[in-house]
Amino acid sequence: MKGVGPVTVRTLAASLGSVEAILAADKATLSAVAGVSAAMVSAILSQRDDLDPGKEEAAAAAIDARLVTPMDEEYPKRLLEIYDPPLALYVQGTLQSRDELGVAIVGSRRTSHYGLETAERLAVQLAQSGVTVISGLARGIDTAAHKGALKGKGRTVAVLGGALDCMFPPENAGLAREICGQGAVISEYPLGRQPDKTTFPVRNRIVSGMSRGVTVVEADVASGAMITAHAALDQGRTVFAVPGRIDTFGARGPHKLIKNGAKLVESVEDILEELGCLIPMPAKGTGAPAGRPVLTEAETALVDLITVEREIGMDALIRQSGRKAAEISALLLGLEMKRVVKMLPGQRVGLRAS
Amino acid sequence: MKGVGPVTVRTLAASLGSVEAILAADKATLSAVAGVSAAMVSAILSQRDDLDPGKEEAAAAAIDARLVTPMDEEYPKRLLEIYDPPLALYVQGTLQSRDELGVAIVGSRRTSHYGLETAERLAVQLAQSGVTVISGLARGIDTAAHKGALKGKGRTVAVLGGALDCMFPPENAGLAREICGQGAVISEYPLGRQPDKTTFPVRNRIVSGMSRGVTVVEADVASGAMITAHAALDQGRTVFAVPGRIDTFGARGPHKLIKNGAKLVESVEDILEELGCLIPMPAKGTGAPAGRPVLTEAETALVDLITVEREIGMDALIRQSGRKAAEISALLLGLEMKRVVKMLPGQRVGLRAS
Repeated sequence: MKGVGPVTVRTLAASLGSVEAILAADKATLSAVAGVSAAMVSAILSQRDDLDPGKEEAAAAAIDARLVTPMDEEYPKRLLEIYDPPLALYVQGTLQSRDELGVAIVGSRRTSHYGLETAERLAVQLAQSGVTVISGLARGIDTAAHKGALKGKGRTVAVLGGALDCMFPPENAGLAREICGQGAVISEYPLGRQPDKTTFPVRNRIVSGMSRGVTVVEADVASGAMITAHAALDQGRTVFAVPGRIDTFGARGPHKLIKNGAKLVESVEDILEELGCLIPMPAKGTGAPAGRPVLTEAETALVDLITVEREIGMDALIRQSGRKAAEISALLLGLEMKRVVKMLPGQRVGLRAS
Repeated sequence: MKGVGPVTVRTLAASLGSVEAILAADKATLSAVAGVSAAMVSAILSQRDDLDPGKEEAAAAAIDARLVTPMDEEYPKRLLEIYDPPLALYVQGTLQSRDELGVAIVGSRRTSHYGLETAERLAVQLAQSGVTVISGLARGIDTAAHKGALKGKGRTVAVLGGALDCMFPPENAGLAREICGQGAVISEYPLGRQPDKTTFPVRNRIVSGMSRGVTVVEADVASGAMITAHAALDQGRTVFAVPGRIDTFGARGPHKLIKNGAKLVESVEDILEELGCLIPMPAKGTGAPAGRPVLTEAETALVDLITVEREIGMDALIRQSGRKAAEISALLLGLEMKRVVKMLPGQRVGLRAS
């Protein structure tokens, strides 16, 4: 419902006992809830009779989309940590648990060749390292980021600023279809909702909220990418920024972020290293070599299989290990995060030089 | 004397009572001093009879140079703070007290157009702000920095890696002469000493030691400019670094420094602001507006004179204030550091927008 955001719905549901109760409550009951304005009550009363969830679900299905709510396993867990998690996401493609470890790459729509090239290269490398690339499918840096992830044969998630059936920018419709094959295109907006100036900043909190870190490649100081970076800080995400020439506008945003504590990124290693710090390193006195990650027994067995040839195809790894594909994926994700292995193009896994 | 550095001389002088005593002591006495190796003793014994300070001073005078020691007023006070202050400096031109507030600009010899342009622009602006630009007269960034300072009608000091009469690089001889008119060309090396691989890094400690901060404009990770930056850190100086494209070698040094805590510089304001922090700001409860510098009575009177037209020529300021030129210079320096006034081209002073 227009004019009624996720925070209001959660406030009302908490007070009235359920979401369904919001649809049944009278004006006085709704108005009595603290934090709910008269305008919100009017918005609810004027729109709730027109709601038809079944029809919306059918319309979503018609464009190969599903509605995913916090009650669904597919809903990104990280979004539940933010102040205003979307009540539901319209999802084309699939969201996987490994996307929880994704990193956003964002930037300006108007960019330089340097910006586009850098965004794509970082995305290729993140994808090859098994990190899902999250962005907003906008022109410029976002587009380069998604394309890079696809090129790196990795996963990528596009968060739209309007409904899934209101593709913007229109020329990215083909790219969106490709993304669905290696990730997901998602939106919190009901079908038919056109994107506008108000929806893009709101969307940005999902880009950062879904990510472990947000990488700003090229952005002027007053730009959507900077809004995403600030949302990331509010949400406790790491902010990364790519520097550039001080005589270019696109470097002003990243430089401002670096001055304020964002991590300077020269290569994908800077991102992986920073996020790798989240993996517990062996404590002193545990007997493990300092600075070397502690591996579980299952991880060690897998690393031994990879060590034979220093790299191995996923199929061979599944076959030789006797484990299920999903188990292998989970183990590899952990090993990637510990910087022991890296994903290579063509569904292959390699050892990192240590 | 070759093979006998300032630290050794100070150690010996402290133990034997005076520098003269080093020249008179026998081998056993010299060898008995802790921290003085047999090689150093040999170096002293084999060279001391050939020393002729009078001849050296005459030779220096013949090239318009003077010998300046820590006992002279002209010796840079900041150099006395470092671990190994030069025993003497050969000076062409003049060192002034305002040079104590100078900032170094250093970088690689091999540079891009971006690097040269940036170094020159920063130097012009520092010079116009009344800040002496200190560098090493090397090809590339150093040369651009000195030229920028001259262009900005400000002061600049070149610290050579060899003796004053062994100009290197030779094509900078003309630039060196120009620098002497607006600052100084200095060296710690006795006349005739050619620069070599060992002298440049040693020289770098003087560049940083004389400066409040060192700005690295363009430098690969293994370069003399990085040595200067590390010397600056050892000496407790602020390190500034200009970012660039991550796909250029010259940005690798500055980016490494920024990752390690150097201040990212986009414009001269970043340098002035950081160093401005060294000026005491009004303490809480003094009645002065927060964040505004406290001005002395003399400073306030001067600011009032400048305020009439927002800028004024130095001559008019001297005439109208009734103060001596040297007094005005000292007052303006304080006001510049408090960021109240700025030096403008053509010996004019302007108010800063507050």
